[in-house]
Amino acid sequence: MIKAALSVLLVLVAISSTFGKYIPKSGKRIPQTLSRGWGDQLIWAQTYEEALYWSRSRNKPLMVLFHLDDCPHSQALKKVFSEDNKLQKMLDEDFIVLNLVYETTDKHLSPDGQYVPRIIFVDPTMTVRADINGRYSNRMYAYEPSDVDLLKRNMEAAKKLLKSEL
Amino acid sequence: MIKAALSVLLVLVAISSTFGKYIPKSGKRIPQTLSRGWGDQLIWAQTYEEALYWSRSRNKPLMVLFHLDDCPHSQALKKVFSEDNKLQKMLDEDFIVLNLVYETTDKHLSPDGQYVPRIIFVDPTMTVRADINGRYSNRMYAYEPSDVDLLKRNMEAAKKLLKSEL
Repeated sequence: MIKAALSVLLVLVAISSTFGKYIPKSGKRIPQTLSRGWGDQLIWAQTYEEALYWSRSRNKPLMVLFHLDDCPHSQALKKVFSEDNKLQKMLDEDFIVLNLVYETTDKHLSPDGQYVPRIIFVDPTMTVRADINGRYSNRMYAYEPSDVDLLKRNMEAAKKLLKSEL
Repeated sequence: MIKAALSVLLVLVAISSTFGKYIPKSGKRIPQTLSRGWGDQLIWAQTYEEALYWSRSRNKPLMVLFHLDDCPHSQALKKVFSEDNKLQKMLDEDFIVLNLVYETTDKHLSPDGQYVPRIIFVDPTMTVRADINGRYSNRMYAYEPSDVDLLKRNMEAAKKLLKSEL
Protein backbone atom coordinates (compact mmCIF):
# COMPACT_ATOMS: atom_id res chain seq x y z
CA MET A 1 0.00 0.00 0.00
CA ILE A 2 2.76 2.39 0.99
CA LYS A 3 4.73 1.15 -2.00
CA ALA A 4 1.78 1.94 -4.33
CA ALA A 5 1.41 5.41 -2.83
CA LEU A 6 5.14 6.01 -3.31
CA SER A 7 4.90 4.92 -6.94
CA VAL A 8 2.05 7.35 -7.57
CA LEU A 9 4.04 10.10 -5.85
CA LEU A 10 7.09 9.36 -8.01
CA VAL A 11 5.01 9.50 -11.17
CA LEU A 12 3.49 12.83 -10.07
CA VAL A 13 6.97 14.26 -9.36
CA ALA A 14 8.18 13.06 -12.77
CA ILE A 15 5.19 14.66 -14.51
CA SER A 16 5.46 17.97 -12.64
CA SER A 17 9.18 18.30 -13.41
CA THR A 18 8.51 18.35 -17.17
CA PHE A 19 5.06 19.91 -16.96
CA GLY A 20 5.03 23.65 -17.47
CA LYS A 21 8.34 23.79 -19.33
CA TYR A 22 7.94 25.83 -22.47
CA ILE A 23 8.16 23.83 -25.71
CA PRO A 24 7.76 25.68 -29.04
CA LYS A 25 4.85 24.67 -31.28
CA SER A 26 7.35 23.49 -33.88
CA GLY A 27 8.84 21.02 -31.37
CA LYS A 28 11.72 20.95 -28.94
CA ARG A 29 14.91 22.65 -30.09
CA ILE A 30 18.53 21.72 -29.39
CA PRO A 31 20.05 24.71 -27.54
CA GLN A 32 22.46 26.68 -29.76
CA THR A 33 26.09 26.63 -28.69
CA LEU A 34 28.57 29.50 -28.89
CA SER A 35 30.98 27.16 -30.70
CA ARG A 36 28.55 26.55 -33.60
CA GLY A 37 30.55 23.39 -34.26
CA TRP A 38 34.00 25.03 -34.58
CA GLY A 39 35.33 23.44 -31.37
CA ASP A 40 32.96 22.44 -28.59
CA GLN A 41 35.78 22.30 -26.03
CA LEU A 42 36.96 25.86 -26.63
CA ILE A 43 35.79 28.79 -24.53
CA TRP A 44 34.31 31.15 -27.12
CA ALA A 45 33.78 34.85 -26.53
CA GLN A 46 30.25 35.96 -27.44
CA THR A 47 30.96 39.44 -28.83
CA TYR A 48 33.93 41.38 -30.24
CA GLU A 49 33.93 43.72 -27.22
CA GLU A 50 34.12 40.74 -24.87
CA ALA A 51 36.88 39.11 -26.96
CA LEU A 52 38.97 42.32 -27.01
CA TYR A 53 38.61 42.61 -23.23
CA TRP A 54 39.80 39.03 -22.71
CA SER A 55 42.65 39.45 -25.21
CA ARG A 56 43.95 42.54 -23.43
CA SER A 57 43.51 41.26 -19.90
CA ARG A 58 45.06 37.83 -20.59
CA ASN A 59 47.64 39.13 -23.08
CA LYS A 60 46.68 36.53 -25.69
CA PRO A 61 46.08 37.09 -29.41
CA LEU A 62 42.50 36.93 -30.65
CA MET A 63 41.26 34.90 -33.60
CA VAL A 64 38.05 36.20 -35.16
CA LEU A 65 36.36 33.75 -37.48
CA PHE A 66 33.56 34.90 -39.79
CA HIS A 67 31.42 32.14 -41.25
CA LEU A 68 27.89 31.20 -42.28
CA ASP A 69 25.88 28.06 -41.62
CA ASP A 70 24.63 27.92 -45.21
CA CYS A 71 28.03 28.52 -46.85
CA PRO A 72 29.62 25.27 -48.14
CA HIS A 73 33.16 26.74 -47.96
CA SER A 74 32.59 27.61 -44.28
CA GLN A 75 31.25 24.13 -43.58
CA ALA A 76 34.20 22.44 -45.31
CA LEU A 77 36.69 24.52 -43.33
CA LYS A 78 34.73 23.89 -40.11
CA LYS A 79 35.11 20.14 -40.47
CA VAL A 80 38.91 20.31 -40.81
CA PHE A 81 39.18 23.06 -38.19
CA SER A 82 37.14 21.28 -35.51
CA GLU A 83 38.82 17.91 -36.06
CA ASP A 84 42.43 19.17 -35.96
CA ASN A 85 43.64 18.28 -32.49
CA LYS A 86 46.79 20.41 -32.62
CA LEU A 87 44.90 23.44 -33.90
CA GLN A 88 42.24 23.09 -31.19
CA LYS A 89 44.88 22.69 -28.47
CA MET A 90 46.75 25.82 -29.63
CA LEU A 91 43.54 27.81 -29.75
CA ASP A 92 42.51 26.63 -26.29
CA GLU A 93 45.84 27.34 -24.66
CA ASP A 94 47.20 30.39 -26.47
CA PHE A 95 44.30 32.26 -28.06
CA ILE A 96 41.06 34.08 -27.38
CA VAL A 97 38.49 32.83 -29.89
CA LEU A 98 35.38 34.40 -31.38
CA ASN A 99 33.22 33.15 -34.23
CA LEU A 100 30.64 35.40 -35.82
CA VAL A 101 27.86 34.83 -38.33
CA TYR A 102 27.11 38.53 -38.48
CA GLU A 103 29.50 41.38 -39.30
CA THR A 104 30.45 43.91 -36.63
CA THR A 105 30.41 47.67 -37.22
CA ASP A 106 34.22 47.73 -36.89
CA LYS A 107 35.68 48.13 -40.40
CA HIS A 108 39.15 47.05 -39.25
CA LEU A 109 37.80 43.49 -39.24
CA SER A 110 37.16 43.60 -42.99
CA PRO A 111 40.46 44.93 -44.44
CA ASP A 112 39.59 43.69 -47.95
CA GLY A 113 35.83 43.26 -47.71
CA GLN A 114 33.21 41.16 -46.00
CA TYR A 115 33.22 37.53 -47.04
CA VAL A 116 33.16 34.10 -45.41
CA PRO A 117 35.01 32.11 -44.29
CA ARG A 118 37.45 34.81 -43.13
CA ILE A 119 39.95 34.65 -40.29
CA ILE A 120 41.41 37.81 -38.78
CA PHE A 121 43.98 37.91 -35.98
CA VAL A 122 44.03 40.75 -33.45
CA ASP A 123 46.98 41.52 -31.17
CA PRO A 124 46.37 42.18 -27.44
CA THR A 125 47.35 45.81 -28.20
CA MET A 126 44.02 45.81 -30.13
CA THR A 127 45.85 46.03 -33.45
CA VAL A 128 44.27 44.04 -36.29
CA ARG A 129 47.07 41.89 -37.78
CA ALA A 130 46.30 42.69 -41.42
CA ASP A 131 49.82 41.36 -42.14
CA ILE A 132 48.80 37.77 -41.28
CA ASN A 133 46.90 36.39 -44.26
CA GLY A 134 46.16 33.31 -46.34
CA ARG A 135 47.19 32.48 -49.90
CA TYR A 136 44.50 34.17 -52.00
CA SER A 137 45.29 37.67 -53.24
CA ASN A 138 41.66 38.57 -53.95
CA ARG A 139 40.43 37.36 -50.54
CA MET A 140 43.45 37.72 -48.33
CA TYR A 141 41.90 36.34 -45.13
CA ALA A 142 40.11 33.34 -46.65
CA TYR A 143 41.27 29.80 -45.94
CA GLU A 144 40.39 26.56 -47.72
CA PRO A 145 40.41 23.20 -45.88
CA SER A 146 43.77 22.45 -47.55
CA ASP A 147 45.24 25.62 -45.98
CA VAL A 148 45.06 24.31 -42.42
CA ASP A 149 48.86 24.04 -42.09
CA LEU A 150 49.25 27.61 -43.31
CA LEU A 151 46.62 28.62 -40.75
CA LYS A 152 48.66 26.97 -37.98
CA ARG A 153 51.82 28.79 -39.16
CA ASN A 154 49.83 32.03 -39.11
CA MET A 155 48.73 31.26 -35.56
CA GLU A 156 52.39 30.89 -34.60
CA ALA A 157 53.01 34.31 -36.17
CA ALA A 158 50.10 35.81 -34.24
CA LYS A 159 51.55 34.41 -31.00
CA LYS A 160 54.60 36.66 -31.52
CA LEU A 161 52.94 39.69 -29.96
CA LEU A 162 53.48 43.24 -31.07
CA LYS A 163 55.30 45.45 -28.57
CA SER A 164 52.98 47.79 -26.74
CA GLU A 165 54.00 51.44 -27.08
CA LEU A 166 53.06 52.06 -23.43
CA MET B 1 35.33 -16.35 -36.25
CA ILE B 2 33.70 -13.70 -38.47
CA LYS B 3 31.72 -12.59 -35.43
CA ALA B 4 34.92 -12.14 -33.43
CA ALA B 5 36.53 -10.16 -36.24
CA LEU B 6 33.46 -7.96 -36.46
CA SER B 7 33.60 -7.33 -32.71
CA VAL B 8 37.23 -6.26 -32.94
CA LEU B 9 36.35 -4.00 -35.87
CA LEU B 10 33.50 -2.40 -33.93
CA VAL B 11 35.78 -1.74 -30.97
CA LEU B 12 38.39 -0.19 -33.27
CA VAL B 13 35.76 2.05 -34.87
CA ALA B 14 34.53 3.10 -31.43
CA ILE B 15 38.07 3.92 -30.30
CA SER B 16 38.97 5.83 -33.45
CA SER B 17 35.82 7.95 -33.27
CA THR B 18 36.82 9.36 -29.86
CA PHE B 19 40.56 9.13 -30.45
CA GLY B 20 42.14 12.36 -31.61
CA LYS B 21 39.31 14.55 -30.34
CA TYR B 22 40.77 17.43 -28.39
CA ILE B 23 40.09 17.31 -24.66
CA PRO B 24 41.46 20.12 -22.45
CA LYS B 25 43.93 19.17 -19.70
CA SER B 26 41.41 20.33 -17.11
CA GLY B 27 38.89 17.77 -18.43
CA LYS B 28 35.99 17.74 -20.84
CA ARG B 29 33.82 20.87 -20.87
CA ILE B 30 30.09 21.19 -21.45
CA PRO B 31 29.68 23.39 -24.55
CA GLN B 32 28.43 26.88 -23.65
CA THR B 33 24.98 27.77 -24.94
CA LEU B 34 23.84 31.13 -26.24
CA SER B 35 20.90 30.97 -23.81
CA ARG B 36 23.17 30.82 -20.73
CA GLY B 37 20.20 29.31 -18.92
CA TRP B 38 17.68 32.11 -19.67
CA GLY B 39 15.56 29.92 -21.96
CA ASP B 40 17.07 26.97 -23.81
CA GLN B 41 14.17 26.82 -26.27
CA LEU B 42 14.52 30.43 -27.42
CA ILE B 43 16.53 31.44 -30.49
CA TRP B 44 19.04 33.91 -29.08
CA ALA B 45 20.90 36.46 -31.17
CA GLN B 46 24.65 36.41 -30.54
CA THR B 47 25.45 40.11 -30.90
CA TYR B 48 23.61 43.44 -30.77
CA GLU B 49 24.22 44.01 -34.48
CA GLU B 50 22.67 40.62 -35.29
CA ALA B 51 19.72 41.30 -32.96
CA LEU B 52 19.03 44.71 -34.53
CA TYR B 53 19.10 43.15 -37.98
CA TRP B 54 16.57 40.48 -36.98
CA SER B 55 14.38 43.01 -35.19
CA ARG B 56 14.20 45.24 -38.27
CA SER B 57 13.78 42.49 -40.81
CA ARG B 58 11.11 40.60 -38.82
CA ASN B 59 9.47 43.74 -37.40
CA LYS B 60 9.61 42.40 -33.84
CA PRO B 61 10.72 44.27 -30.71
CA LEU B 62 14.07 43.30 -29.21
CA MET B 63 14.71 42.46 -25.56
CA VAL B 64 18.31 42.98 -24.45
CA LEU B 65 19.13 41.37 -21.13
CA PHE B 66 22.37 42.23 -19.33
CA HIS B 67 23.41 39.80 -16.62
CA LEU B 68 26.41 38.14 -14.97
CA ASP B 69 26.97 34.52 -13.98
CA ASP B 70 28.40 35.50 -10.60
CA CYS B 71 25.67 38.03 -9.71
CA PRO B 72 23.10 36.55 -7.28
CA HIS B 73 20.40 39.04 -8.41
CA SER B 74 20.90 37.91 -12.02
CA GLN B 75 20.73 34.26 -11.00
CA ALA B 76 17.54 34.78 -8.97
CA LEU B 77 15.88 36.56 -11.89
CA LYS B 78 17.11 33.88 -14.31
CA LYS B 79 15.35 31.13 -12.36
CA VAL B 80 11.97 32.88 -12.47
CA PHE B 81 12.53 34.07 -16.05
CA SER B 82 13.46 30.67 -17.47
CA GLU B 83 10.67 28.83 -15.65
CA ASP B 84 7.84 31.21 -16.61
CA ASN B 85 6.07 29.41 -19.44
CA LYS B 86 3.99 32.41 -20.53
CA LEU B 87 7.01 34.72 -20.56
CA GLN B 88 9.06 32.23 -22.59
CA LYS B 89 6.22 31.72 -25.09
CA MET B 90 5.80 35.48 -25.60
CA LEU B 91 9.54 35.91 -26.08
CA ASP B 92 9.69 33.04 -28.56
CA GLU B 93 6.74 34.19 -30.64
CA ASP B 94 6.84 37.97 -30.47
CA PHE B 95 10.38 39.08 -29.63
CA ILE B 96 13.99 39.00 -30.76
CA VAL B 97 16.11 38.10 -27.72
CA LEU B 98 19.71 38.84 -26.80
CA ASN B 99 21.47 38.23 -23.51
CA LEU B 100 24.87 39.77 -22.83
CA VAL B 101 27.44 39.35 -20.08
CA TYR B 102 29.56 42.14 -21.50
CA GLU B 103 28.54 45.73 -22.25
CA THR B 104 28.38 46.98 -25.84
CA THR B 105 29.92 50.26 -26.96
CA ASP B 106 26.41 51.63 -27.62
CA LYS B 107 25.56 54.07 -24.81
CA HIS B 108 21.86 54.01 -25.68
CA LEU B 109 21.73 50.59 -24.01
CA SER B 110 22.72 52.08 -20.63
CA PRO B 111 20.35 55.07 -20.23
CA ASP B 112 21.01 55.28 -16.46
CA GLY B 113 24.27 53.38 -16.17
CA GLN B 114 25.71 49.91 -16.51
CA TYR B 115 24.40 47.41 -13.98
CA VAL B 116 22.96 43.90 -13.92
CA PRO B 117 20.40 42.50 -14.21
CA ARG B 118 19.09 45.12 -16.65
CA ILE B 119 16.45 44.71 -19.35
CA ILE B 120 16.19 47.18 -22.23
CA PHE B 121 13.60 47.02 -25.00
CA VAL B 122 14.40 48.22 -28.52
CA ASP B 123 11.76 48.98 -31.15
CA PRO B 124 12.22 47.65 -34.74
CA THR B 125 12.78 51.31 -35.73
CA MET B 126 16.04 50.87 -33.71
CA THR B 127 14.77 53.22 -31.00
CA VAL B 128 15.71 52.23 -27.45
CA ARG B 129 12.46 52.21 -25.43
CA ALA B 130 13.82 54.16 -22.44
CA ASP B 131 10.15 54.76 -21.54
CA ILE B 132 9.64 51.07 -20.63
CA ASN B 133 11.14 50.53 -17.20
CA GLY B 134 10.84 48.66 -13.92
CA ARG B 135 9.92 49.95 -10.45
CA TYR B 136 13.25 51.21 -9.09
CA SER B 137 13.98 54.91 -9.60
CA ASN B 138 17.73 54.54 -9.03
CA ARG B 139 18.06 51.60 -11.45
CA MET B 140 15.20 52.07 -13.84
CA TYR B 141 15.79 48.96 -15.96
CA ALA B 142 16.43 46.50 -13.11
CA TYR B 143 13.93 43.75 -12.30
CA GLU B 144 13.67 41.58 -9.18
CA PRO B 145 12.18 38.04 -9.37
CA SER B 146 8.97 39.46 -7.84
CA ASP B 147 8.70 41.92 -10.77
CA VAL B 148 8.03 39.22 -13.35
CA ASP B 149 4.40 40.32 -13.86
CA LEU B 150 5.54 43.91 -14.38
CA LEU B 151 8.07 42.58 -16.87
CA LYS B 152 5.31 40.82 -18.81
CA ARG B 153 3.22 44.03 -18.84
CA ASN B 154 6.28 45.87 -20.14
CA MET B 155 6.65 43.25 -22.86
CA GLU B 156 3.05 43.93 -23.89
CA ALA B 157 3.95 47.64 -24.05
CA ALA B 158 7.01 46.90 -26.19
CA LYS B 159 4.82 44.90 -28.58
CA LYS B 160 2.95 48.12 -29.39
CA LEU B 161 5.48 49.24 -31.97
CA LEU B 162 6.46 52.84 -32.60
CA LYS B 163 5.41 54.23 -35.96
CA SER B 164 8.26 54.42 -38.41
CA GLU B 165 8.75 57.91 -39.84
CA LEU B 166 9.49 56.45 -43.25
